[in-house]
Amino acid sequence: MTIMAVNNNGEFAGTFHTAVLTTTKEIKASPLVGIQHIKTQPTFGFTVNWNFTDSTAVFTGQCFVDTDGKETLKTMWLLQSHANSIKDDWNATTVGTDTFTRRAEVME
Amino acid sequence: MTIMAVNNNGEFAGTFHTAVLTTTKEIKASPLVGIQHIKTQPTFGFTVNWNFTDSTAVFTGQCFVDTDGKETLKTMWLLQSHANSIKDDWNATTVGTDTFTRRAEVME
Amino acid sequence: MTIMAVNNNGEFAGTFHTAVLTTTKEIKASPLVGIQHIKTQPTFGFTVNWNFTDSTAVFTGQCFVDTDGKETLKTMWLLQSHANSIKDDWNATTVGTDTFTRRAEVME
Amino acid sequence: MTIMAVNNNGEFAGTFHTAVLTTTKEIKASPLVGIQHIKTQPTFGFTVNWNFTDSTAVFTGQCFVDTDGKETLKTMWLLQSHANSIKDDWNATTVGTDTFTRRAEVME
Repeated sequence: MTIMAVNNNGEFAGTFHTAVLTTTKEIKASPLVGIQHIKTQPTFGFTVNWNFTDSTAVFTGQCFVDTDGKETLKTMWLLQSHANSIKDDWNATTVGTDTFTRRAEVME
Repeated sequence: MTIMAVNNNGEFAGTFHTAVLTTTKEIKASPLVGIQHIKTQPTFGFTVNWNFTDSTAVFTGQCFVDTDGKETLKTMWLLQSHANSIKDDWNATTVGTDTFTRRAEVME
Repeated sequence: MTIMAVNNNGEFAGTFHTAVLTTTKEIKASPLVGIQHIKTQPTFGFTVNWNFTDSTAVFTGQCFVDTDGKETLKTMWLLQSHANSIKDDWNATTVGTDTFTRRAEVME
Repeated sequence: MTIMAVNNNGEFAGTFHTAVLTTTKEIKASPLVGIQHIKTQPTFGFTVNWNFTDSTAVFTGQCFVDTDGKETLKTMWLLQSHANSIKDDWNATTVGTDTFTRRAEVME
């Protein structure tokens, strides 16, 4: 995940790199947009618009900083699959967790 | 919820109106940003940056259109509260559902 | 959903009737076990062991009683699919909501 | 968490030990009931009836066994708080993950 600079309102954009679940194991970069609070150890959220499928994911979490200054993004996510109709929607949302470590050179 | 025009990449911004949970019952408008797929009955996601609290919410779902052309946004959301430390984070995320009906004049 | 009598510890058992997602639309009854608190408008939880698949569902929620005495079970659920390995487990859990109305003759 | 023997239907009961979130840090044992599938690496679910609060938790997940025979229970959970009324219920459910390692002497 690469995040571009955060603006004064806390808005940011970037790209999410993921291995497409096919035999080719190609890595695809999908766009993301989100907002964070402007404070220490902020909560944040972002949307990933997968560009190899009709699905969308949202992540929310908090950036924790330990005593050594190391940042950890603890997140939960919802992944929304495309349903053919509203009555097929009941099991279209999966839920999970992810933990990211920021790299100083890409997260400003 | 008011959504401004969606751009060619499916990105949109807007404001989310909610009753602040205090005795004054003041309605506050918080900014949101998100992305939708560019297709019929798209999945989408957006982040709401509550401006009266340190929390963040993310919504994801799908826009369903019935035979009369009426649009319904079926969503699930995660609401991330601010935790004082990573060990207090375990119960910081609530989950729920919301259904929105688009109004033609605000959703372009 | 049919719930047998709740014992003094709040434990109950029953069966969950669901349409199997096949072309035959057969209705299958799967066993469930759970616990509720012993108080008015209790929270509760139960597990459904689907007997036509390797999946398991858990429901949790609260029983609300309106001024006419009508009971409504508001629930959220997680549906756990069987994954072939721990690295395929990341998207094995779907999440959703369900609302049940108790029928006096089956819920004692 | 201590699980008693699983019966032929996959049903089990046990106790969940947790530190009560008070200054006394007392450890309380709350009852749990659940069901697992009868197969290798089964999915399962269980309900914990917290006996120091009006809340209920449900866990669901899968038991994975690595090449050394070590068992890992990967779970997601919902924690349902008690709401005073149905309109206060919207943010009563938190969601999270937990990983358990079975101890041979207590998990039969």
